[in-house]
Amino acid sequence: MDEEELIAAIHARARRARVARGSGVAVGIGHDCAVLALRPGESLAWHVDDQVEDVHFRRRWARLGDVGWKAASAALSDLAAVGARPLGVQLALGVPRDLGDRSVLALVDGFVAALAAAKAPLVGGNVASRPAGQGISLSVSVAGAVRRPFLRSGARPGDGLYVSGSPGLARVALLLLEAGKRAPAAARERLLRPRPLVGLGLELARLAKGRPSAMMDVSDGLARSVAQLARASGVRAVLDEASLDFEATRRAGRGLGDVVDLVLEGGEDYELLVAAPPAFERTRVARAFTRIGVLERGRGALVRRRDGSESSLEGRGFRHR
Amino acid sequence: MDEEELIAAIHARARRARVARGSGVAVGIGHDCAVLALRPGESLAWHVDDQVEDVHFRRRWARLGDVGWKAASAALSDLAAVGARPLGVQLALGVPRDLGDRSVLALVDGFVAALAAAKAPLVGGNVASRPAGQGISLSVSVAGAVRRPFLRSGARPGDGLYVSGSPGLARVALLLLEAGKRAPAAARERLLRPRPLVGLGLELARLAKGRPSAMMDVSDGLARSVAQLARASGVRAVLDEASLDFEATRRAGRGLGDVVDLVLEGGEDYELLVAAPPAFERTRVARAFTRIGVLERGRGALVRRRDGSESSLEGRGFRHR
Repeated sequence: MDEEELIAAIHARARRARVARGSGVAVGIGHDCAVLALRPGESLAWHVDDQVEDVHFRRRWARLGDVGWKAASAALSDLAAVGARPLGVQLALGVPRDLGDRSVLALVDGFVAALAAAKAPLVGGNVASRPAGQGISLSVSVAGAVRRPFLRSGARPGDGLYVSGSPGLARVALLLLEAGKRAPAAARERLLRPRPLVGLGLELARLAKGRPSAMMDVSDGLARSVAQLARASGVRAVLDEASLDFEATRRAGRGLGDVVDLVLEGGEDYELLVAAPPAFERTRVARAFTRIGVLERGRGALVRRRDGSESSLEGRGFRHR
Repeated sequence: MDEEELIAAIHARARRARVARGSGVAVGIGHDCAVLALRPGESLAWHVDDQVEDVHFRRRWARLGDVGWKAASAALSDLAAVGARPLGVQLALGVPRDLGDRSVLALVDGFVAALAAAKAPLVGGNVASRPAGQGISLSVSVAGAVRRPFLRSGARPGDGLYVSGSPGLARVALLLLEAGKRAPAAARERLLRPRPLVGLGLELARLAKGRPSAMMDVSDGLARSVAQLARASGVRAVLDEASLDFEATRRAGRGLGDVVDLVLEGGEDYELLVAAPPAFERTRVARAFTRIGVLERGRGALVRRRDGSESSLEGRGFRHR
């Protein structure tokens, strides 16, 4: 397939997965720009996210359908993190010339399946051939509509810190797969087919009482995310070590070292990290979260160990470079 | 520099070039999403464009500052094509590990200089290291605000076809540089430092009388663009060969073959192709355009030669793949 044929094939697959249209999409694929409508009072939430072969994934352990799925989900996760409703997605796909048509379409199928799961329409994009032997790259641009976006800043002393799910699972899978081993299903799923928490973000956005004061997604590891949120908000984060003993992570990561290290250093979980006032714990949506610490006056981010000692979080966390 | 340092350096350069803020930017670099505000009645115009090394440019003949400039301009050109006001830009940068810091920053400087020229703020993006030896890639996502977007569809029989500037100049430069020769300044400038016609697009959007019925930018060659516009609008395009003898292109392209072929096949000119009713010619903004043909009932796209013979445009035009 040449570029035009590939774009037509992507469009056909988007139609089949029912993500070629959306309520806010005035103009979709096929014009110089996509045109999207916001409702009165809404702002545009907009993010760009990349997945690059041999940086974010390896074909040795990720099927191309998973790669496509994850690229979409990782980008949509940032919409979840600000509490936005997905409006549309664009995909800039870089494919090496020696990648067969069937492989490219498997990638596309995974991508549109993730869009369908998140009810996010595909409204455009482009395809560029890369020289043979180079890596696949997906640059995903996502647009959403939001009334009062959650930011990393805004957390106050006295707020609790909460995280959804079981952070560290994706890291467990990564460590095992990189070592050529099998990963438990729960961990594998989290690394290869993460689900963006768009619905959870919208539920948080609808809260009147107990509304989070700050939020972000945990894409670069919990330790690093907590440090970033504390820095952006001008507060000090104190995590409670006992609360970081997530059972699912401990079980999947048996033999890989201390569960707290896995939880803190794991990246690509795409869970939500929330700072919120005490009233948050009385909301229904709080059940999806675990309280992991508290924010205080001051600067920095640390874990308070069971023995009372403190250990700084700065500089921890998964880095791609 | 690691990724965080590079992002900080990009941010610093954006501030220095005064493109770190913009009137519609509620939240810029440093949060999970950028947040942009539209005015009442405006829709979002949104486009993603890629520049990939050895596909769209070669370091042999393009300085990295030019590469950055062009990546921004090529993406902004699509906002011009729908008549949108730039709201913000995000850059997803892929850099091979063996590219030095100074080179990366030269690329960034060219990029922000083009944003400054178009008054388009940088609101986010990301950086991914690629394995050494792989090509540089820039995926540029642009957002604009538009009331009544110009589309490729909408042109009617009886409308004239108009193009801005001197199409083919970029192709002249490409042919010469690829052959290891020097290119005349006018052609070189057009290929390496194109200026997105954002102001011209906005002027067209303000027209009450003579408003274009369809518009697009000429990024893949005039022949191909005319064929695409005719197809999207369900009309037949008939170009007049005599009108395609652009003097600037003829002069720069001496020795490279027939000027009409250069004009029709040239890509990456980023000029605007407009279909408009006769009243368009009485507008002030029409002076920036040359009338090159007419739209008729029917299908297809062709050139009427000086001798009265006709030649189809389908399948012509510059292709990257």
